[in-house]
Amino acid sequence: MELKGFAFSVVEAAIKKPGRKDLALIFSRVPAACAAVFTNNKVKAAPVLLGMERAAVGSCRAVVVNSGNANACTGQPGMESALETARLVAEGLGIDEAAVIPSSTGVIGVQMPMDRVRNAVPPLLEGLGHSSLEDVAKAIMTTDTFAKLAVRKGMAGGVPYTIAGVAKGAGMIRPDMATMLSFLVTDAAVEQSWLQEAFRAAVDVSFNCITVDGDTSTNDTALIMANGLAGNPPLSGADADAAAFRRLLDEVTLELAKAIVKDGEGATKLVTIDVRGAANHKDARLAGMAVANSPLVKTAFFGQDANWGRILAAVGYSGAEVDQSRVALSFDDVRMVSGGLFVGGDAETRGSAVLHKPEFRVTIDLGLGEGRATVYTSDFSYDYVKINADYRT
Amino acid sequence: MELKGFAFSVVEAAIKKPGRKDLALIFSRVPAACAAVFTNNKVKAAPVLLGMERAAVGSCRAVVVNSGNANACTGQPGMESALETARLVAEGLGIDEAAVIPSSTGVIGVQMPMDRVRNAVPPLLEGLGHSSLEDVAKAIMTTDTFAKLAVRKGMAGGVPYTIAGVAKGAGMIRPDMATMLSFLVTDAAVEQSWLQEAFRAAVDVSFNCITVDGDTSTNDTALIMANGLAGNPPLSGADADAAAFRRLLDEVTLELAKAIVKDGEGATKLVTIDVRGAANHKDARLAGMAVANSPLVKTAFFGQDANWGRILAAVGYSGAEVDQSRVALSFDDVRMVSGGLFVGGDAETRGSAVLHKPEFRVTIDLGLGEGRATVYTSDFSYDYVKINADYRT
Repeated sequence: MELKGFAFSVVEAAIKKPGRKDLALIFSRVPAACAAVFTNNKVKAAPVLLGMERAAVGSCRAVVVNSGNANACTGQPGMESALETARLVAEGLGIDEAAVIPSSTGVIGVQMPMDRVRNAVPPLLEGLGHSSLEDVAKAIMTTDTFAKLAVRKGMAGGVPYTIAGVAKGAGMIRPDMATMLSFLVTDAAVEQSWLQEAFRAAVDVSFNCITVDGDTSTNDTALIMANGLAGNPPLSGADADAAAFRRLLDEVTLELAKAIVKDGEGATKLVTIDVRGAANHKDARLAGMAVANSPLVKTAFFGQDANWGRILAAVGYSGAEVDQSRVALSFDDVRMVSGGLFVGGDAETRGSAVLHKPEFRVTIDLGLGEGRATVYTSDFSYDYVKINADYRT
Repeated sequence: MELKGFAFSVVEAAIKKPGRKDLALIFSRVPAACAAVFTNNKVKAAPVLLGMERAAVGSCRAVVVNSGNANACTGQPGMESALETARLVAEGLGIDEAAVIPSSTGVIGVQMPMDRVRNAVPPLLEGLGHSSLEDVAKAIMTTDTFAKLAVRKGMAGGVPYTIAGVAKGAGMIRPDMATMLSFLVTDAAVEQSWLQEAFRAAVDVSFNCITVDGDTSTNDTALIMANGLAGNPPLSGADADAAAFRRLLDEVTLELAKAIVKDGEGATKLVTIDVRGAANHKDARLAGMAVANSPLVKTAFFGQDANWGRILAAVGYSGAEVDQSRVALSFDDVRMVSGGLFVGGDAETRGSAVLHKPEFRVTIDLGLGEGRATVYTSDFSYDYVKINADYRT
């Protein structure tokens, strides 16, 4: 992948325990336009508080990110750790410390082992250029079982550019405190305020379709850097090149978001919940999220049980306007419910066959209006419980 | 237990499968004042729709309740089944059919096997008086592992009376579609509109502290019948006898609600979440419910992991006002967090010891105001997933 002007590095800092690379650096050789979306959780990790402040200026040079420790609920000492980490990196790179955005994921409530971070920064800086973005994807993993990387190539003003991104997983679809991090880089030139708008929109139909706003972790962060070294005329507004960039940006974030769902802790299924016919978009989203988050629906998916009744019950309590006599429901192309009633015949057998597939779609038509929303979820397995009961130990 | 003027009956109707008594009748020999609280789910089972209408008049004679089939998402045929079941019972008892309230719990989306119900009603009526309220508690069980019965005795105007109740479980603490049913009977004389108010208040601090309003199943029902045959002057208002009745009513509903949590599907812990110092009562409840419903918190309880970070994260996304630097948290008497920070020392070891107990309390002080709320939850185990993945099959 050609991504002009970006360099990456990963090292083992042994932040939680030794044996894996857990500290990563993303660096742009020139100032990059930057846009970011952070957790709505009122309990915010120190690096999130600092990152919000630094990303708000719309430009940055580097992101330094660790796994193994969330640096959340760590108070003033935690903030000093985030500041010091960014300062050490900035000093080594010879740039303004405000241009370095720190990020963390891992256990909550434990102070950062700063002695180990201090020791790890020099080799991190020396290694710049010797690691790939995929190495960064690996370094930020916590309970993820595979690295998440997505890449798209585009053209703007006759000039080729690349958008690439990495992400780490969110445990289950409603991540509570299981942090989601995603970092995107592009060498396209993009006007900053337009980048912020396009990125917010992309996050809304990707990461926010696997995460309820306000139901986010202490550390959730999605950030993009655009350094302009591809040399295209800066993208902005609604022309064809800008529209094409938005489509690629949406594809990268959606691919990463789906990868997070697929790698949900203990997940064995990737399920798309498609709500249509809602009174409005908000209702469609409420209904979709209620289904996607219901432990009873998710355990039924794990059991490969075509239990449409649990889905209707979740729609019913979602807060969306519902007239039960108008609801239709399908598993892939198999219609299960029409007019609120089970269709009978061989639907049970055929619906059950759909649920045995590793990926399938649930379409819910509320029959009321034009509201639509698509959300993505996984099933809820024994392993989810095992992973989360044992996580800290 | 002496409960004047009530008679009970249970029979095997083999509604889902043979082998257990699954149809029950509660009958008052005289018209009883009645008060009820039904699910807020917009998808309501046929017997709920009918029961809401019938309970609204404030008086009834009988409740006929089955397990094995929820009669939900069954449309007009389902409503006809509910009407016919109540009518058959009313005819056999020689009472007005509107005085019979039907209730159902079990699988959604399957029509009631009315041939079997018709065959079962005559023996149900013949058996009246040969069964106990505990038999009713057993007949309404679905995935419950023990029958839930609570009894209190009181005095009013020098006359003894009894309040007794049964309940069936709600799967996990946020029951989604796992139905909660509870039926209370008392021979005390109680003025109807006051009974409705007192019962609503009792439900709010018991069943509604294990169930988020709006997050209820298609069938949830709590109902009380007061037939007055104890002979006391009708209770009403705020005198000492009425206050004593309210206390006993609260005790019965809370005992049943705690029994439901204790018998949560796969539960191994009964956890009381006590939120104080919130900006107001609503915030306290939001924070408590977010903690009680978090799958990550619940799996940590199962893992006996003193993971206070997950609890703070849930408080953070609850929607309640939070200043993370003011939050304190304890497991029983072991202080874990002060001023938003881990207290250190041997708190980890001592907190962990608390989590090894089968019952414990989490106290969260937000340090902002006078708002308080107490909610009850269970842990989230392998067995929860197993039970709910396999329920229909």
